[in-house]
Amino acid sequence: MQTQQRENLKYGFLRTVDAEFDEAVEKTSEALKAEGFGVLSEIRLDEKLKEKLGVDFRRYVILGACNPPLAFQTLQEDINIGLLLPCNVVVYEAEDENRSVVAAIDAKTMLSVVGESAQIEQTAAEVNDRLQKALERI
Amino acid sequence: MQTQQRENLKYGFLRTVDAEFDEAVEKTSEALKAEGFGVLSEIRLDEKLKEKLGVDFRRYVILGACNPPLAFQTLQEDINIGLLLPCNVVVYEAEDENRSVVAAIDAKTMLSVVGESAQIEQTAAEVNDRLQKALERI
Repeated sequence: MQTQQRENLKYGFLRTVDAEFDEAVEKTSEALKAEGFGVLSEIRLDEKLKEKLGVDFRRYVILGACNPPLAFQTLQEDINIGLLLPCNVVVYEAEDENRSVVAAIDAKTMLSVVGESAQIEQTAAEVNDRLQKALERI
Repeated sequence: MQTQQRENLKYGFLRTVDAEFDEAVEKTSEALKAEGFGVLSEIRLDEKLKEKLGVDFRRYVILGACNPPLAFQTLQEDINIGLLLPCNVVVYEAEDENRSVVAAIDAKTMLSVVGESAQIEQTAAEVNDRLQKALERI
């Protein structure tokens, strides 16, 4: 699949891909798996908003991606780090419904709220490297 | 239930409560509901670590808490904010197994990575107020 657009968010990495929503979600999950992430949670935000508020929203899923060895290592450093796990990857419909946006959290930025820790910074860098590789695979 | 210990993390709010794990999880979910949060995801981290790495870890759950009107409002401000949703609340066994630790993310700190936005800051303050009230209810 060709990259159509790449953009850096302040707190994440983003691509717009030539795939409709369901296909993009499937390809994103596969790409995450190939880079060592399991998808631990899957939240269909549009369905929740419809159910709770009755509003129509573009199709939008939040995938909770976790690399078990890195998560375990980080938990041993800081037991409360679960507050910042898993790493979110979102997929949502682009303005053009035949295309989708895939974005991954910037783990380095997110984990910066923990304060200075060489170990956590190193882990975050590795997570970012894998997340960006996963985005390239879609 | 009596508060035994209260602690401020750099990136969250924490209490240690006189309840074993299952009871603490149940009470936390109820308290979140009472403050307007639905629990959209529930990740048993210890079970995942056992399954993927074969390691024994204390019982530990990550609850994904979301207040639909506030989430909707924030999404309209920034479509990528799903990268920082839902707000995590973790419950895990304390050193003494009869007690549990409950911690909630500091939404203001977490959302600070988005950059300056009066709207998002105000929403984050309201989320924090509700999360702290939920913690008080346990």
